[in-house]
Amino acid sequence: MLLVVLELVGIAVFAASGAVAAVRAGLDVFGVIVLALTTALGGGVLRDLLLGVTPPSALVHWPYLLVPAVTGLVVFRHHPRVARLRRAVLLLDAVGLGLFVTAGTSTALALGTPPYTACLIGMTSGIGGGAVRDVLLREIPLVLRREIYAVAALAGGVVVTSGHVLGLPPGPVALIATALVVAVRVLALWRKWNAPVARGFDA
Amino acid sequence: MLLVVLELVGIAVFAASGAVAAVRAGLDVFGVIVLALTTALGGGVLRDLLLGVTPPSALVHWPYLLVPAVTGLVVFRHHPRVARLRRAVLLLDAVGLGLFVTAGTSTALALGTPPYTACLIGMTSGIGGGAVRDVLLREIPLVLRREIYAVAALAGGVVVTSGHVLGLPPGPVALIATALVVAVRVLALWRKWNAPVARGFDA
Amino acid sequence: MLLVVLELVGIAVFAASGAVAAVRAGLDVFGVIVLALTTALGGGVLRDLLLGVTPPSALVHWPYLLVPAVTGLVVFRHHPRVARLRRAVLLLDAVGLGLFVTAGTSTALALGTPPYTACLIGMTSGIGGGAVRDVLLREIPLVLRREIYAVAALAGGVVVTSGHVLGLPPGPVALIATALVVAVRVLALWRKWNAPVARGFDA
Repeated sequence: MLLVVLELVGIAVFAASGAVAAVRAGLDVFGVIVLALTTALGGGVLRDLLLGVTPPSALVHWPYLLVPAVTGLVVFRHHPRVARLRRAVLLLDAVGLGLFVTAGTSTALALGTPPYTACLIGMTSGIGGGAVRDVLLREIPLVLRREIYAVAALAGGVVVTSGHVLGLPPGPVALIATALVVAVRVLALWRKWNAPVARGFDA
Repeated sequence: MLLVVLELVGIAVFAASGAVAAVRAGLDVFGVIVLALTTALGGGVLRDLLLGVTPPSALVHWPYLLVPAVTGLVVFRHHPRVARLRRAVLLLDAVGLGLFVTAGTSTALALGTPPYTACLIGMTSGIGGGAVRDVLLREIPLVLRREIYAVAALAGGVVVTSGHVLGLPPGPVALIATALVVAVRVLALWRKWNAPVARGFDA
Repeated sequence: MLLVVLELVGIAVFAASGAVAAVRAGLDVFGVIVLALTTALGGGVLRDLLLGVTPPSALVHWPYLLVPAVTGLVVFRHHPRVARLRRAVLLLDAVGLGLFVTAGTSTALALGTPPYTACLIGMTSGIGGGAVRDVLLREIPLVLRREIYAVAALAGGVVVTSGHVLGLPPGPVALIATALVVAVRVLALWRKWNAPVARGFDA
């Protein structure tokens, strides 16, 4: 139950990041919705393929499709002003990353995957959706350009896995893991926004 | 049987679309054949992975490889004039989309996948090959740029699934679904070719 | 045992090719490590998904992660001068291709996959990592631009498969197959470096 809620919120947030990126790239309403769906569901589908769960749950239960489609439509109609879109993509991406890493790691552990593997699959699940979004829009993925991206994802996976191994209650652990990922990313972004970036890789 | 024929024709048509796009991008004969194979088989491999069919049927039976390889070679030798290549890619893509959505949805249903999931996997199977082709050639995929692309695919999947649920004969249903997808796409393209496109996204 | 060694050496070599490409693209240390990991593990993960081995072995055993991460770090600290980076990527890619095609085909055969399919999965496994590397850096993949790329991979797969069918000892066969792929690729590169290339596709 906790997992499903975490995952649906993460899907909505990643859908919004995909939709905002699509609006920024000048796509029309259908393109925006398709990119919202791809970004939102890419990580989870990848996770299920790696775990051997077929068909992936994102294709079996309708809320997984309805939530990102509606999110994409809402963003298309009411997106913030263009000047603020870049920040919006990065912030939404940070929150989505936290939620997906946590949900992905927890799902893998719940299926009996060993901790080491669960941690990696959680990371992949968090990074996957955003990477697909960036590749489809012909950008070099954030995970390659932002120093702290993969490290933040890893930290979240380690917290969830450690909590599981130590037998701590999953709810608070999930909350802490998500908050940690978001905090690390937002801190990195905030520092960047105020500092000149060497070698021009701040796109 | 019907499924195999549908799929092989779809493979040939998608292979031609990939080969023409590769010729247009200036690739040599080997690049053209590899892109023909990737475009033709990408959607089916993705479908089999989503359905848990391993190894994917495209890698098990040799006609799945021979048909697109020969198609790629033929296109390389006898491609239409450069000025008409862009239309050729779009037209072939439309027919391939129709055939793949129909074949993909039918395959999923034949394996006992629930209708909702079968419909989505059919769509993915139709959209996947063309998306891989465009990403490899560094273009933003058609499905993100053409309004009616995903909707056409969805319509085809819904027709096949509805026919299955209602117990209608699969042959005529497959024909109608394929024709519907092609008709919607061609209509959209024809309208585009004669009308100015807002905001310059008609690549 | 032979398989594991082959695969780990291939992983290190592909990781180096990814890391050098990332350095060339101006990525920072984290981006270099992530791209080293993706390039090194992409082909093996794809192979395992096609074979239905989940979770993929690259995510289960820690050397598969440690080797490319360390390789990426070492390349980042001690990479050759910029002028020689392009050749370094191509040479490392050739060796990695040979090792991966051989290891991938052998793994597939060891799992009881029919020869034809094993050969194709070995090719895919060899080509996959480099293709992911190039797509993430927004380049058209080598396999589409270099005439002999797919043919070299195919030749390696055919040698391994033939050896298996004929019951020859796997060690020498693996060595010959790897050497064949590397020789074909290096020969093609060497010829290119000294000859003008038609139509400007020598990126």
